Amino acid sequence: MTKLKVKTGNREELYNITSEVQSAVDRSGVSDGICHIFVPHTTAAVLIQEADDPAVGRDIATHLRRLFPRGDPYEHNDGNADAHMKATGVGNTATVFIEKGKLTLGTWQGIFFCEFDGPRAREVWVKVQG
Amino acid sequence: MTKLKVKTGNREELYNITSEVQSAVDRSGVSDGICHIFVPHTTAAVLIQEADDPAVGRDIATHLRRLFPRGDPYEHNDGNADAHMKATGVGNTATVFIEKGKLTLGTWQGIFFCEFDGPRAREVWVKVQG
Amino acid sequence: MTKLKVKTGNREELYNITSEVQSAVDRSGVSDGICHIFVPHTTAAVLIQEADDPAVGRDIATHLRRLFPRGDPYEHNDGNADAHMKATGVGNTATVFIEKGKLTLGTWQGIFFCEFDGPRAREVWVKVQG
Repeated sequence: MTKLKVKTGNREELYNITSEVQSAVDRSGVSDGICHIFVPHTTAAVLIQEADDPAVGRDIATHLRRLFPRGDPYEHNDGNADAHMKATGVGNTATVFIEKGKLTLGTWQGIFFCEFDGPRAREVWVKVQG
Repeated sequence: MTKLKVKTGNREELYNITSEVQSAVDRSGVSDGICHIFVPHTTAAVLIQEADDPAVGRDIATHLRRLFPRGDPYEHNDGNADAHMKATGVGNTATVFIEKGKLTLGTWQGIFFCEFDGPRAREVWVKVQG
Repeated sequence: MTKLKVKTGNREELYNITSEVQSAVDRSGVSDGICHIFVPHTTAAVLIQEADDPAVGRDIATHLRRLFPRGDPYEHNDGNADAHMKATGVGNTATVFIEKGKLTLGTWQGIFFCEFDGPRAREVWVKVQG
């Protein structure tokens, strides 16, 4: 397993980590297989979505705020229950195929780390299967 | 990796692709393993849900429209930002176990391609691990 | 594949099944690999989320009820369409890395079976890859 570091700068923000994940695949030496991505946090997520227009990531954050307002009444009283809800909605794992040593993504896709309770020092775990 | 083709006929619709995925498993010759399904689009998704009553798929589309209205203000101005939101909510990967050469699904489950910005010619990528 | 049994006691409830999944990993004898978790039901889900404060699970159930009210008009008329929506939002698979024979989870994470239409006798399928 490779542990990538992500330093987030805002409470909510999406970070394109595709090239960092590709570097982990490069280091594995696997040319044909599966790349598993796992976020070990409960207020962050990983998402495969459009990488061309950063507005998509901002729209996702905006709409998740509308679905799970921070000011709603929550039993979990750490002040970040909304971030747990948002992370649940997006998910903490992703799976990407590897062919000829490269992550195979669709034309518009990138891999994004989704911060919902930053800024923080975060990790993304990557495991490559040959 | 096998690339399945899905020709969608409406803006939003769920298509049961279980038999096409099973055919990809058949061609792989794998009898015990894992079938990974990956949608290489950012306005479509894959979902394992009830295959018996097509009303479930229609309910899912209806409720996603209510959560992410097409007419909402979005920064992404291609007119399909709602479809990116819906795809994010459902997810673009699925994993199914294979036993004795067959996809092992629950009694009521099927594998669905979820179109949120059709009609289009789409792909579903399948990779089988032995 | 190992089939775990989960007996749920309420219509909606999250159950921490981390130790049962770890037992399946123990029985597999795999020390380095991937643990795949699959819920074969269409009104239940699996989620990796905070295991320290049970309030998080209750908040998730509460907010999913707000997003998908049971009393909404649904075409699927079994009285549990809301549960299908909730399961779709959370997802029916999870993937966890195994190192030195142990599931590698973040500090606060646990693996939860999410019941949305109980009480019922449920199954969770686990497959371990070395």
